[in-house]
Amino acid sequence: MTDEPNRKRRAGGRAGNKLRAGTSAIDQMPWRIPVNPDRPTEPLDMDGVMKVHRGAMRILREIGIEFLNPEAVAILKQAGCKVDGTNVRMDEDFVMEMLGHAPETFTITPRNPEREIIMGGKHMVFVNVSSPPNAWDLERGKRSGDFTSFKEFMKLTQYFNCIHVAGGYPVEPIDIHPAVRHLDCLYEKLTLTDKVVHAYSLGAERVEDVMEMTRLAGGLTHDEFDARPRMYTNINSVSPLKHDYPMLDGAMRLARRGQPVIVTPFTLAGAMAPVTMAGAVALSLAEGLAAIALLQYINPGCPVAIGTFTSNVDMKSGAPAFGTPEYMRATQMTGQLARFYKLPMRSSGVCAANVPDGQAMWETSNSLWAAVQSGTNMVYHAAGWLEGGLIASPEKFIMDCEVLQMIQRYFEEATFATTDDDIAFDAIKEVGPGGHYFGCQHTQDRYTTAFYAPFVSDWRNYEAWNLDGAVWTPERAHRLFKQIMDEFEAPPMNGDHQQALTEFVAKRKQEGGAPTDF
Amino acid sequence: MTDEPNRKRRAGGRAGNKLRAGTSAIDQMPWRIPVNPDRPTEPLDMDGVMKVHRGAMRILREIGIEFLNPEAVAILKQAGCKVDGTNVRMDEDFVMEMLGHAPETFTITPRNPEREIIMGGKHMVFVNVSSPPNAWDLERGKRSGDFTSFKEFMKLTQYFNCIHVAGGYPVEPIDIHPAVRHLDCLYEKLTLTDKVVHAYSLGAERVEDVMEMTRLAGGLTHDEFDARPRMYTNINSVSPLKHDYPMLDGAMRLARRGQPVIVTPFTLAGAMAPVTMAGAVALSLAEGLAAIALLQYINPGCPVAIGTFTSNVDMKSGAPAFGTPEYMRATQMTGQLARFYKLPMRSSGVCAANVPDGQAMWETSNSLWAAVQSGTNMVYHAAGWLEGGLIASPEKFIMDCEVLQMIQRYFEEATFATTDDDIAFDAIKEVGPGGHYFGCQHTQDRYTTAFYAPFVSDWRNYEAWNLDGAVWTPERAHRLFKQIMDEFEAPPMNGDHQQALTEFVAKRKQEGGAPTDF
Repeated sequence: MTDEPNRKRRAGGRAGNKLRAGTSAIDQMPWRIPVNPDRPTEPLDMDGVMKVHRGAMRILREIGIEFLNPEAVAILKQAGCKVDGTNVRMDEDFVMEMLGHAPETFTITPRNPEREIIMGGKHMVFVNVSSPPNAWDLERGKRSGDFTSFKEFMKLTQYFNCIHVAGGYPVEPIDIHPAVRHLDCLYEKLTLTDKVVHAYSLGAERVEDVMEMTRLAGGLTHDEFDARPRMYTNINSVSPLKHDYPMLDGAMRLARRGQPVIVTPFTLAGAMAPVTMAGAVALSLAEGLAAIALLQYINPGCPVAIGTFTSNVDMKSGAPAFGTPEYMRATQMTGQLARFYKLPMRSSGVCAANVPDGQAMWETSNSLWAAVQSGTNMVYHAAGWLEGGLIASPEKFIMDCEVLQMIQRYFEEATFATTDDDIAFDAIKEVGPGGHYFGCQHTQDRYTTAFYAPFVSDWRNYEAWNLDGAVWTPERAHRLFKQIMDEFEAPPMNGDHQQALTEFVAKRKQEGGAPTDF
Repeated sequence: MTDEPNRKRRAGGRAGNKLRAGTSAIDQMPWRIPVNPDRPTEPLDMDGVMKVHRGAMRILREIGIEFLNPEAVAILKQAGCKVDGTNVRMDEDFVMEMLGHAPETFTITPRNPEREIIMGGKHMVFVNVSSPPNAWDLERGKRSGDFTSFKEFMKLTQYFNCIHVAGGYPVEPIDIHPAVRHLDCLYEKLTLTDKVVHAYSLGAERVEDVMEMTRLAGGLTHDEFDARPRMYTNINSVSPLKHDYPMLDGAMRLARRGQPVIVTPFTLAGAMAPVTMAGAVALSLAEGLAAIALLQYINPGCPVAIGTFTSNVDMKSGAPAFGTPEYMRATQMTGQLARFYKLPMRSSGVCAANVPDGQAMWETSNSLWAAVQSGTNMVYHAAGWLEGGLIASPEKFIMDCEVLQMIQRYFEEATFATTDDDIAFDAIKEVGPGGHYFGCQHTQDRYTTAFYAPFVSDWRNYEAWNLDGAVWTPERAHRLFKQIMDEFEAPPMNGDHQQALTEFVAKRKQEGGAPTDF
């Protein structure tokens, strides 16, 4: 928040768009890693922070966490934790010592180093929707995820500069056999996009394959791969109080090679967590910190982040709810604790709505503003999520990207700069009473970059909008989706690297891929 | 933010709803004056605040404001301001001395004292949409405002406990002659609702009639009416740099009788204000503070508030844009300056969208969260606004009320309380690993009030929603609108007061109402 914004870096408007390469369906903002300048919204005072912290520590000390992975249990026993079968109890000193090793900030560098992301500090990156089993769009309705839809979402992920990470599968392509699904999916991810990719921790072979494919796609030696974060995984606990075998296995594999692990308990208050939000947050933190402590013991200083997925259920039906007031406060509270532990944080852009309508957008807006308010560093499911994560929608993806771009613009200092040029006394004097500012030099010098320029919002008046067909937002988004699919060009890729990737996939398919009995 | 929430005051869920009187179309929250516990989001440091302040003061001192009202000019001349025709320049000492008289907080008491509102501090109240010339709904489409629609919106205004103020006309009823329109409209407002009402400052007769009607509806003596705020007006400047005759006239009439005046310049950056947001805010503040200084000179200590309506235009088309990133920052900056001047603040819940779709809700969410973040005390157009204020829509009204209720719930301490009961260690121990919280006593004791309970959101999964007709949000809102109209019962009113009101309207109509040549 210095006083002299570098106007050349202003990029909210149309002029900034000249910087982007590529297609013309929309005029979008150039790639950047957004920096959140706001002081976080903090519902808890320091006493409240300490109460949640002590709650989490007491859970770890007196109740313990089930680690359903014998290797993890053995390691934690060696570390001095109290072990009883799969139950592991750890004390605050151990946890805090381990957390002290974790870096506050790290980078992840994909095959295109220009798409490197920063995790931590005031940085904030956006991830595509991940893991819905189904797709929905205005033309085809709801259907099971397939490889065609998967590739469409990968193209959207690459197309939008405001999406920084190609996270999990945007839809699960059930037409690809699970044994080789990760091979086909990662091949598409690594060729259709040049952004940071993710490995599901669903068995050793899958994790190892994704690390190897990421290495090959980047043309890296093993040493180069291990030297810095190149991809990441996200693991969820089985709340309450459990970490399962494959998630822990994948997390330990990545930690050993210095690749980042995000630990995100999925705790719905009233179902798998206490009905009270602070309790749900304390439980979520206990679960997350237990896994992070394990990873820091295995490889002190390995990159990790704490995730939050604490929302509530509808107590009438048990249905999960997202983007609720309780969700917002849980996210903000977790942000306070993440800063207390000096860990980067992940949250999400989520909703319960089934279609990309008003409800979808107020719930998603609540989630996204909670991410901003909480100081979240990585926003999962930031574009395309519907039905509590059971549906991915291209229209919703495009609508969400408008909101994400607005958040990026909101972060730009130009929107609140107070230099003499911004206060504009001379222009106010020149225009005087009753005049207008359209024509004055102060406006002429700035109008191309002065304001956020939307791509799916329609700002015309009703008559103009009506004459042009009275098209509601989801239909406008659908049309853009078709245009983007028509125009899409994959990012450039070194032919040798692509060849190596192709050969690896063929070889691993010949070997039968990964076991499917997990 | 004490540690011990009074659980009896929790009212986010269904149990709270038992408190409300009335109808059954929806389960809504009881009436309350929301209190915003968050520290505001402040993009400016103190240096930035001072730069905007000095910018506003320099405008007032060196450029001056046009007061197109000879009485106001004469008063300001007497006060020592530099007058040149209609141009009035005032120095910082005078302005700050006048602002020093203004109360930081005041109340407005309508005919039902239980609907008293508080303006200032951390209080936040919501006002219905005001002044669109047109109405739109799913059944009737877009049409000019009429008295039927006016009354429908008045019923919605009364029905929803989260709407605290019956502001301006929610649609302009053009089927009522302008000479008597205010008489018919205020009669409906004062009988269909028991909430705080507003007078348009559009000529002496209208203002005086509304004050008199408010007095009669409350059964008050003249002394009782004058003793405290009973209604209010909102005036807009003619930006840039002008205050017109009728607005000033109405404001001065109310100020003399101790009735509140909100001064809200309408400054679209790039059109009637500088293209830079801090400049637009400085201009807006200069205009607003000039009128407030006048009113404080006339009646020191009279209740006033500063309004902000600073957004931007689309530089391609000149169309006004709302709920933009620039709008959010302007609102937050104005909030910082309002606190610097110790004035209550008004902002709005606005959008540019033409129909109640996704765009409408992300723009409105942006506006409403900016209101929260800025510490706004009164949110105009909080429910029902479309097309940049040219359309009022009942579906949008109902959808917005869901968001408003969520904001009210978000403010409740229960969502972030950290007592031992909230941390819930015993419940976490009791449920243990792999169990669930639906049945435990900790949940049973709290589930009826634990979470926000929506009324128009649909949280069912896709299949259940689809089987039930696959109804999108606007259609669900439309159905609720019809139900509410069917069920509506006007609030009770003292028969003598209603009789006095009826007789006054008849008398004033016989006299010809108000002149229409303003």
